[in-house]
Amino acid sequence: MFIASRMNRLGTETAYAVAAAAKAYAAQGNKVYPFHIGDLNFKTPSNIIDAAKTALDKGYTGYCPAAGITELRESLAHDINKSHNTDYSYENVSIQPGGKPVIGKFIMTLMEEGDHAMYPTPGYPIYESEINFFRGIPTPYTYKETEKGFEIDMDYFRSLITPKTRVLIYNNYHNPMGVCSSKEEMAEIAKIAVENDLYVLSDEAYYDMVYQGEEQRSIVSYPGMKERTVILYTFAKKFAMTGWRLGAAIGPKEIIDYITKINTNDEACTCHFNQYAAIEALKGDQNRPKEILDILYNRLNTILDILKDCPGIIVHKPKSTFYLFINVTELMNKMGINKYDEFRQHMLENTGVSFCTRNHFGNPLPNETNKYIRLAYSGIEEEMIREGLTKFKNYIKKFF
Amino acid sequence: MFIASRMNRLGTETAYAVAAAAKAYAAQGNKVYPFHIGDLNFKTPSNIIDAAKTALDKGYTGYCPAAGITELRESLAHDINKSHNTDYSYENVSIQPGGKPVIGKFIMTLMEEGDHAMYPTPGYPIYESEINFFRGIPTPYTYKETEKGFEIDMDYFRSLITPKTRVLIYNNYHNPMGVCSSKEEMAEIAKIAVENDLYVLSDEAYYDMVYQGEEQRSIVSYPGMKERTVILYTFAKKFAMTGWRLGAAIGPKEIIDYITKINTNDEACTCHFNQYAAIEALKGDQNRPKEILDILYNRLNTILDILKDCPGIIVHKPKSTFYLFINVTELMNKMGINKYDEFRQHMLENTGVSFCTRNHFGNPLPNETNKYIRLAYSGIEEEMIREGLTKFKNYIKKFF
Repeated sequence: MFIASRMNRLGTETAYAVAAAAKAYAAQGNKVYPFHIGDLNFKTPSNIIDAAKTALDKGYTGYCPAAGITELRESLAHDINKSHNTDYSYENVSIQPGGKPVIGKFIMTLMEEGDHAMYPTPGYPIYESEINFFRGIPTPYTYKETEKGFEIDMDYFRSLITPKTRVLIYNNYHNPMGVCSSKEEMAEIAKIAVENDLYVLSDEAYYDMVYQGEEQRSIVSYPGMKERTVILYTFAKKFAMTGWRLGAAIGPKEIIDYITKINTNDEACTCHFNQYAAIEALKGDQNRPKEILDILYNRLNTILDILKDCPGIIVHKPKSTFYLFINVTELMNKMGINKYDEFRQHMLENTGVSFCTRNHFGNPLPNETNKYIRLAYSGIEEEMIREGLTKFKNYIKKFF
Repeated sequence: MFIASRMNRLGTETAYAVAAAAKAYAAQGNKVYPFHIGDLNFKTPSNIIDAAKTALDKGYTGYCPAAGITELRESLAHDINKSHNTDYSYENVSIQPGGKPVIGKFIMTLMEEGDHAMYPTPGYPIYESEINFFRGIPTPYTYKETEKGFEIDMDYFRSLITPKTRVLIYNNYHNPMGVCSSKEEMAEIAKIAVENDLYVLSDEAYYDMVYQGEEQRSIVSYPGMKERTVILYTFAKKFAMTGWRLGAAIGPKEIIDYITKINTNDEACTCHFNQYAAIEALKGDQNRPKEILDILYNRLNTILDILKDCPGIIVHKPKSTFYLFINVTELMNKMGINKYDEFRQHMLENTGVSFCTRNHFGNPLPNETNKYIRLAYSGIEEEMIREGLTKFKNYIKKFF
């Protein structure tokens, strides 16, 4: 069968293999602790569900405009203006079937073939996939680990900039590392973007999943950035709406109009009645989203409490997201395991703890020597966290 | 502002301008008869709405697999097998956020850059847009008008085939012409596809909008076609679900797996709980879809009854869809109007009747001399049809 050659350039998410291994192990009668699941195990708040039902009853079941219904675009612009110190109108907002579609549409609209496109590694694997698919030159930047946690390796970041660098993907509140830029780091990146005339995708999927004591901030608020930034917005995390597929691209009108033109070609519009639920999410009761964040924070503290005296691993307290990125270099060395898949399968079979590894978040750079795993606590209850990680720690202790 | 050059190759739907003109004219206090609206003015049947509500209550608000939930894939395969004489399993089905996404995904997966890609003109304008965007050579085939109606110009069709021809887009039950292939025409196209090793997109958006006395048939049922055909399926028309954005690609497993890989990159999955509503659409009470088709057929007959003695135009009774493609060549000549937009605006301002023209369905071929308009009767009630088209006919009579 003939398949077009461009399909060789399309990447994917490989974490499905982890879920499949966990499922197979559970099917043999074993208990699995699912730290690999990136989905939230919360139902969407009931006021949002009720709004969808009301919209269905009102008959909002026909087409709507390609950019979304004006009332939602206005509500979202208003909401972003409050938190981002911007002055967007509805014309700066294009509703999408999820946050994810914004990645490809940003690349299509702003990256010429052969342009250098910067993106984080470790990072969401779809960045690299879409850059390759549309024939950009993938230019990964990376993070360094300090005693305080992770930060972008800014020397390396600066060294990557060339006259061919056109687009920069920036994922503050970062999956899989849970890291946020300091004010200074964000200012520096903004300055580099302005000086080098880069277009920036600010992937803000986890913008509202930020814990106590940490300030929310967006690169779009820095001087000269609003003109060159597209925000990837999603209703998925804050409102536990992952399966609704509701998000938006927010940015300069000219870019947003092109993105909406892609909507017209690719999916006509986003599900009509769901958009009324999204208005309720933005304007309605905000207690449940706060509760969800509190529950996640409690889960995080439970994990940190158990793992703080676990030998052979380095755990930093993340400031955002629902992920922990854990340095397991010493442990893997002690165990004499060098390959991620072997380590993952070994830990699953000996402790029931299932997790993703660094390899599920883009190709490692050639000079990477440390080894990392990602624990997600979005899909696992406290009791299971306690039970699973206690087994995990006790098993690890045998090697020390 | 920099915009990537590929965006110059992206087309769009231009019918929005017609809606805008109608709206502006109505805003001046005029009565408008909306024959331009391609959306259905029916609410989704209540059993389907109830199924969505139940799925929301059950908490199906998280992610689902990129290819869709297995139960829906199975139901749809079963449904297609019954009507198409095929033996698809769930593995041959990839659920999509609408029928439309299948067009681009088919092109991406099967058309190499530089390949010749055949598609109908007049036809759905997104075909040409996606072919251009992904750097195919657009190769439009066309229709000829006989006393009986329209049929594909098979001599011209055959003359377009070259060794570089790779993909063929075939839209039986055709928008905007409402035309269906005879058994012989479909067999001939299938034979050409097999002989020339073409991959076929069978756009079956209107497969279930076929009127009394006409047999439903699909090109996938012909020998050698299942291996090379992707069916564009949508829940939109039959079940009045246009705004839900629910459809599917159905075809050989290898192609479907690639299309699902595009899902993973572009939109993760289709709205989860809506897929349970789609199962109800397929398995539940089929009375309302039949009623909707009956109402549409009555509207069609009302139109034909009024226009049958209208001078200067040629109207054929379409066998499917909810569109009439009317030859207005003589009328436009009599009126001394040569330009479509001028004719459209003139008729709007003198009769209130608003419609799309041939120009909204792809670029005319250089040798096209006849002029056509499209009347849609999906979004207008019988009483309005009668009132509007009576004014329309009486106005036309003045020129004869």
